[in-house]
Amino acid sequence: MDIELVTIGTELLLGFTIDTNAAELARVLATVGARVVRRTTVGDDPGDIDRAMRDALTRTRFVIATGGLGPTRDDMTKKVVAAIFEAPLELDSGYLEVLRQRFAAMGRVPMPESNRSQAEIPRGATVLPNNWGTAPGLWLEGPPGVAVLLPGVPNEMRKLVEHEVVPRIREKGKGKGETVVRSLTLRTTGIGESSLAAQIGEREDRIQPATLAYLPSVNGVDLRLTVSNLPAEAADTALKRAAAELLPGLRAHYYGDDTTDLAAIVFGLLRDGGHTLAVAESCTGGMLGERITAVPGASAVFRGGVIAYANEVKVASLGVSLALINEHGAVSEPVVRAMATGVSERFGVDTSIAVTGIAGPDGGTAEKPVGTVWLAARVQDREQVMKRRFLGERDEVRARSAQAGLDLLRHMLRQ
Amino acid sequence: MDIELVTIGTELLLGFTIDTNAAELARVLATVGARVVRRTTVGDDPGDIDRAMRDALTRTRFVIATGGLGPTRDDMTKKVVAAIFEAPLELDSGYLEVLRQRFAAMGRVPMPESNRSQAEIPRGATVLPNNWGTAPGLWLEGPPGVAVLLPGVPNEMRKLVEHEVVPRIREKGKGKGETVVRSLTLRTTGIGESSLAAQIGEREDRIQPATLAYLPSVNGVDLRLTVSNLPAEAADTALKRAAAELLPGLRAHYYGDDTTDLAAIVFGLLRDGGHTLAVAESCTGGMLGERITAVPGASAVFRGGVIAYANEVKVASLGVSLALINEHGAVSEPVVRAMATGVSERFGVDTSIAVTGIAGPDGGTAEKPVGTVWLAARVQDREQVMKRRFLGERDEVRARSAQAGLDLLRHMLRQ
Repeated sequence: MDIELVTIGTELLLGFTIDTNAAELARVLATVGARVVRRTTVGDDPGDIDRAMRDALTRTRFVIATGGLGPTRDDMTKKVVAAIFEAPLELDSGYLEVLRQRFAAMGRVPMPESNRSQAEIPRGATVLPNNWGTAPGLWLEGPPGVAVLLPGVPNEMRKLVEHEVVPRIREKGKGKGETVVRSLTLRTTGIGESSLAAQIGEREDRIQPATLAYLPSVNGVDLRLTVSNLPAEAADTALKRAAAELLPGLRAHYYGDDTTDLAAIVFGLLRDGGHTLAVAESCTGGMLGERITAVPGASAVFRGGVIAYANEVKVASLGVSLALINEHGAVSEPVVRAMATGVSERFGVDTSIAVTGIAGPDGGTAEKPVGTVWLAARVQDREQVMKRRFLGERDEVRARSAQAGLDLLRHMLRQ
Repeated sequence: MDIELVTIGTELLLGFTIDTNAAELARVLATVGARVVRRTTVGDDPGDIDRAMRDALTRTRFVIATGGLGPTRDDMTKKVVAAIFEAPLELDSGYLEVLRQRFAAMGRVPMPESNRSQAEIPRGATVLPNNWGTAPGLWLEGPPGVAVLLPGVPNEMRKLVEHEVVPRIREKGKGKGETVVRSLTLRTTGIGESSLAAQIGEREDRIQPATLAYLPSVNGVDLRLTVSNLPAEAADTALKRAAAELLPGLRAHYYGDDTTDLAAIVFGLLRDGGHTLAVAESCTGGMLGERITAVPGASAVFRGGVIAYANEVKVASLGVSLALINEHGAVSEPVVRAMATGVSERFGVDTSIAVTGIAGPDGGTAEKPVGTVWLAARVQDREQVMKRRFLGERDEVRARSAQAGLDLLRHMLRQ
């Protein structure tokens, strides 16, 4: 079943409000086999709403609209859609009474006159009772197709979708061999989008009916597999087969599924191995510690760390020799090694991560440009170091450095 | 100038990604008098992209499209739009060289073959150089109107809009007597939304033609003033008058405008006062250091810090006495004081912030429930401590703690 969404509101269009409703609606609809094929946002203008609704109904004959159902002047979705369906508005005295009682319960008697319009229902429409606000949802069916009108307030929209819309769509889909959209995300890090694509190569041709999307971010490249138009069970099987096909191409860059955080993976490896961790951070300034301690229960493995931003701190708190810094510079292999060793010894831990780099915007040189980062990880007596050159702004360089530090330790813990 | 946005990506349509680009783009365009009148989202399907772009061009003759410019197979915006403008793709050898050099700088030689397609430019199109990623923006003008194609990666889109798109639109709008939408945000922290509303009281009646919106977040409550349908200069004057009306009601909770970060304000106060800073963090796990070091040039004031997650670290690295911890608990006034004193002495700085608290989900007691946080700030021999009880999840408690620590120091530095 193909559906179009129309979200209505000048606030959305001007960008003062982020449209989270549309994303949530699409995810929920997909689970019952309804596929959102287009989304349109227009402002609170009757002409614009009219055109967007007519266009969408012509294309798919099934449209869900959110917003524009409140009692204030700028809310006009109901009037416009009633006109499209040639269904005049009629006062629903039963719903008017429901509204009156709700206002009475809040101690507001009489009910504001402006709310009376919310009890006006297009003839023949089904009222979707809204127990979480005052504007009811509406379900219209007629020659133009199906139009479902929902309030724009996120919580009210969510509840109406769950209790009223999803059951009706499921009912409509019955006996039609209902199909769903499902997805699975394989998370990778330490490899760019195009190198990953080269590694995957022709494996991508063998993942059908799943489709593949590359989603790069500072944390790496997520690979989202999506399957549509299959019954639920077949969709899950197809996703598993597609993942099994791709995984060998991802090698050790793959670290988890869906929203798994790399820090949580590292935490699990540390806990399972009975390790304790400390960090020594220069350019990341605390970000590595923050990532690890974001994991609930982090205290089981994480002891703490030193934010060694100034060279004097590297010397005094980590025991890095000043001569080493003077000879090689603070962003260098010998210094990152000394930072990792120093924090391991001083904090009495058996694993550590150290980072030193040039996050920018200043501080770069021809030899060590902005984005140059040295990373070290220690596990007992083993140590690995890595030099990276990250592109991007200060924030990106730092975030990529923290992720790379966690990943370096992950690789060592898996050996 | 009326503009339509077309955002492209199956991910957006399926609701896996929230479309923040569209909102940001609309806000920025409004500041130069360009009004977004409709926004359409379609998936990575050439037919759908083609229809959406043609419809939008027919309505407004000016369309900005985001997404679908990357090197992987699912990116097809450029091909489709080139066909609409009847502008065949041609290899731009200059841009190809730019790409090659960028990959070489990252040590990736040869450049992956899939990136070569990013140097293919529709004939006659203007390349908008993307110094923050590999896919260039494109500006096409022809019989169908104007189409601007931007990458979907938020940071790249943002930079291209700022450096390439906004100046061109400003140039186009010159001398047309355009009206604009402008907004100004006053940032506050350390006070709840309803207390702030009570303090503002009837001042709100005197800010017309500006309107006021309350935007609460973990960092405090932002107050957004908006003015629409005025020429640029009149809009700016109206905003300034409205801000001057509200500011006395905000008292010292106000710390800056628009996207000003509290850490940057604290950094400025420290630098101007010739101070040096160190931090001692328990529950925030590095977040305070991360906030401060996110400010470019932080090294002028920030020396470093100790992430004292385990009690042993509080003792060994900050000199907190074990007896004190045993008597009062790690989350207590005496311990947070000792942490601030300890880090000031050991790092040889004249200002410091210390935080210790229970971020949850576990670790709370009847006496010290989850969300209990002790904060201390020192400036030379002065010291202030504060106990707070933050509501929310682990992440929220931590973020609110970091913000409160910065704000405590800000208050002391202003005295």
